[in-house]
Amino acid sequence: MKTVDTIVKAEHILTMEGEGVGYLADHAVAIDRGRIEAVAPWSEMEGTYRAEQVIDAAHKLLLPGLIDGHMHTSEGILRGLAQDIGNWMMEGVMPFSEQCSEKAGAAGSRLAIAEAVLAGTTTIGDDGMQMDASCAFVEKIGARGNISVRIRDAVNRVYRAGELYEYLPELGEQSLERFRQIYRRYHDRDNGRIKIRLGPQGADFVSLETLQKVKKLAREYGTKIHIHLEQGSREARQMEMRYGMRSIPWLAQMNFLDGDVIGIHLTDAYDDEVRLAASTGASMVLCSASIGIIDGIVPPAKLFQDAGGLVGLGSDQAPGNNCHNIFSEMKLTALFNKIKYGDPEVMPAWKVLRMATIEGARALGIGEVTGSIREGKAADLILVNLKAPTMAPVYTAPMRNFVPNLVYSAHGDEVDTVMVDGRLLVQGGKPVTFDLKEIVAEAQSYADQIGALAEPKFREINGQNARYMAEGKL
Amino acid sequence: MKTVDTIVKAEHILTMEGEGVGYLADHAVAIDRGRIEAVAPWSEMEGTYRAEQVIDAAHKLLLPGLIDGHMHTSEGILRGLAQDIGNWMMEGVMPFSEQCSEKAGAAGSRLAIAEAVLAGTTTIGDDGMQMDASCAFVEKIGARGNISVRIRDAVNRVYRAGELYEYLPELGEQSLERFRQIYRRYHDRDNGRIKIRLGPQGADFVSLETLQKVKKLAREYGTKIHIHLEQGSREARQMEMRYGMRSIPWLAQMNFLDGDVIGIHLTDAYDDEVRLAASTGASMVLCSASIGIIDGIVPPAKLFQDAGGLVGLGSDQAPGNNCHNIFSEMKLTALFNKIKYGDPEVMPAWKVLRMATIEGARALGIGEVTGSIREGKAADLILVNLKAPTMAPVYTAPMRNFVPNLVYSAHGDEVDTVMVDGRLLVQGGKPVTFDLKEIVAEAQSYADQIGALAEPKFREINGQNARYMAEGKL
Repeated sequence: MKTVDTIVKAEHILTMEGEGVGYLADHAVAIDRGRIEAVAPWSEMEGTYRAEQVIDAAHKLLLPGLIDGHMHTSEGILRGLAQDIGNWMMEGVMPFSEQCSEKAGAAGSRLAIAEAVLAGTTTIGDDGMQMDASCAFVEKIGARGNISVRIRDAVNRVYRAGELYEYLPELGEQSLERFRQIYRRYHDRDNGRIKIRLGPQGADFVSLETLQKVKKLAREYGTKIHIHLEQGSREARQMEMRYGMRSIPWLAQMNFLDGDVIGIHLTDAYDDEVRLAASTGASMVLCSASIGIIDGIVPPAKLFQDAGGLVGLGSDQAPGNNCHNIFSEMKLTALFNKIKYGDPEVMPAWKVLRMATIEGARALGIGEVTGSIREGKAADLILVNLKAPTMAPVYTAPMRNFVPNLVYSAHGDEVDTVMVDGRLLVQGGKPVTFDLKEIVAEAQSYADQIGALAEPKFREINGQNARYMAEGKL
Repeated sequence: MKTVDTIVKAEHILTMEGEGVGYLADHAVAIDRGRIEAVAPWSEMEGTYRAEQVIDAAHKLLLPGLIDGHMHTSEGILRGLAQDIGNWMMEGVMPFSEQCSEKAGAAGSRLAIAEAVLAGTTTIGDDGMQMDASCAFVEKIGARGNISVRIRDAVNRVYRAGELYEYLPELGEQSLERFRQIYRRYHDRDNGRIKIRLGPQGADFVSLETLQKVKKLAREYGTKIHIHLEQGSREARQMEMRYGMRSIPWLAQMNFLDGDVIGIHLTDAYDDEVRLAASTGASMVLCSASIGIIDGIVPPAKLFQDAGGLVGLGSDQAPGNNCHNIFSEMKLTALFNKIKYGDPEVMPAWKVLRMATIEGARALGIGEVTGSIREGKAADLILVNLKAPTMAPVYTAPMRNFVPNLVYSAHGDEVDTVMVDGRLLVQGGKPVTFDLKEIVAEAQSYADQIGALAEPKFREINGQNARYMAEGKL
């Protein structure tokens, strides 16, 4: 008999191994020092292992923790302030975001990450300029992090329509230096739980020279590059003015795109560009809700997959989504694509569940560590309550209804237990490693101040939401 | 000082009165014998009323209960058994639904209604053949009901493609008799809390003679008609074979459509048919999730509204949605329409919140009773927890973020309190008037049997979900 830290005894497991969802009945998972030691039938497990802690997952569904491949958690502080608006960036977010201190952003990060973890997200794919607070919180609460530090040369100011972004080489250098610092401090911390990535903001925001440095650094540091890719007409216009080419062909031509690159959004990529990007081995993260809210567009994830590319899911940001919840992303992704193609068989539940787990993990370059339940992988697991009304009743024959109900019915609060690297973050639906009340109260403490500072610009712009306020519609 | 049953003291109220959301700060609602007695500032209320029960809604948002205009609650027993499939009716639902006993359907109804109420739905808009169990449960737990009894002449069997449905006049008569019985038993029960409606299944399923009887009965009984309207190519084909016309023009021509009619879906109605239907004064119920799942279509709700028609929201059924949650319907409705029109300003949050409350109530013919917070209306109210991470932080100036966060971020479990006619159904997120564990256990007790009985037909049809089972994708 070998002693391990934990055994989780489950009636129903979705391992997400193989080509489908890897269903197993009446199996147990043995966990030791954060890693999955064995996955075996109950009967076998009992004769082989004994554990310090046995988690009896009766009436629960065991599956890998969910992977959020793209978030801007610091914008959690601005939840609900920008949506239903044509010019999201300038009319929606900007009046508020320019009034956010680093401390307010840090509070927003903690709120967004807490929200995500409570809804079963074990891997936080965060992106932004100041990533210290996010890394520190992910480390402290025990989540997995895939965190990119934003690289850009473009001066952050208002540009006239048709004006080329102004690059300052020292801005690019400063951002690369921030990456190096964060990388040294957090990369591979705690058994590799946190990965630090290079985050060039987009081909339009970063000079050719800096992009070449990014590519070189990624190889030197053995890490990946997380880049917004063809996220709208603004980007296309900048690229055409500067290089006479759109982002994907231009990046492909300079050999920037390859298996080290995680491309975000591809909102308005042409079909041949999608195929070209997928053919380089780059992966894609799809943010269904945020691109639906901001642009009214369904990004080309199906085309990217059909061309052989890997696609993960992302929740983007709270002022334009407005939640960090992969259950919501799964349902939206399935339904948006059914509608886009006018075909209810497109993007079935099992496919989006794979995008939320193993394919998402692979898209981020952590597929060997997380995203499925297999011996040797990290114990990043969640338990979903099968007695929640949204998951009931359970059918096991002739058809199992776990996967459709996870994707189309559950909302995230069915998540009972969240474990990362064998450590419990959430138990009985309650946080174990963080204090939710404190996090919400801290975020609230910044809201009045941000609102007051944003007011003059909000009124001056007089955008859609300012007009709605005047009309009593908010 | 007048004594009333209850005073709810709220920091933030969305009354849904007027053209917008009717926001009020620091007001209280006095409730007596189920009705709203007064809505006034705290300070005024304190000098005027005293109450048996004071509900302090600090850090909560008070708004009217949500209206679900179209459900088939008995199919709650079949949650998750039909989706991702081209022929939803024949390949998806049928193998299972034909094995459902009336008792199993009753258990499904209780599950679906409990789920909906916990997520803030106060008006249950149910539709089906056997409505006794649904009415009894709605009555018992204290919800509001807008319940239609299905009328049809068509024999319920498998038809060959292109075969005209066989009508049996006695089936129509029997269904009318079922309506009369349920009407006598439940209509206007408990202070008018339950309304019984006529539910002709669709112009294709009901003979001309029976439809004329339905129209006459609606006037005689002073009730409304709930009818599926142009819900797909199957219906169009039947109508063209039988009458050489499609449903909306045919029904309009015979003066069937008017303010007494609630038209469901309009899935594939042509633009001129949508305008024609709206011009008659008929209302529409939009089921975004279910029509997305079943057909990959965004129904023409915006066009119906632009033509002056009223549109409410509905969750339809659990084997093809798969949840009964108006928060989910609100987000999907906003996003589907933004995508349909490629415009993020289409279907803003405040508009869909109106569809989920006052406009939905008006669409069902109960707008004078529920759907907004106003003196004289029923006290159908919900409180939403503003300290839930999905609703935080709260901004009140220069822009309030309650409405966007209700629609785009909340999932339903933020609902802390549900009150109908002044009676508490849910408090602290827990059911008061029903036992959720018992309801879930009862539904579960039917699943294995239905599965076993359905297996031969499920295997014989060998549809998409049977193939997915064989491939380990479920």
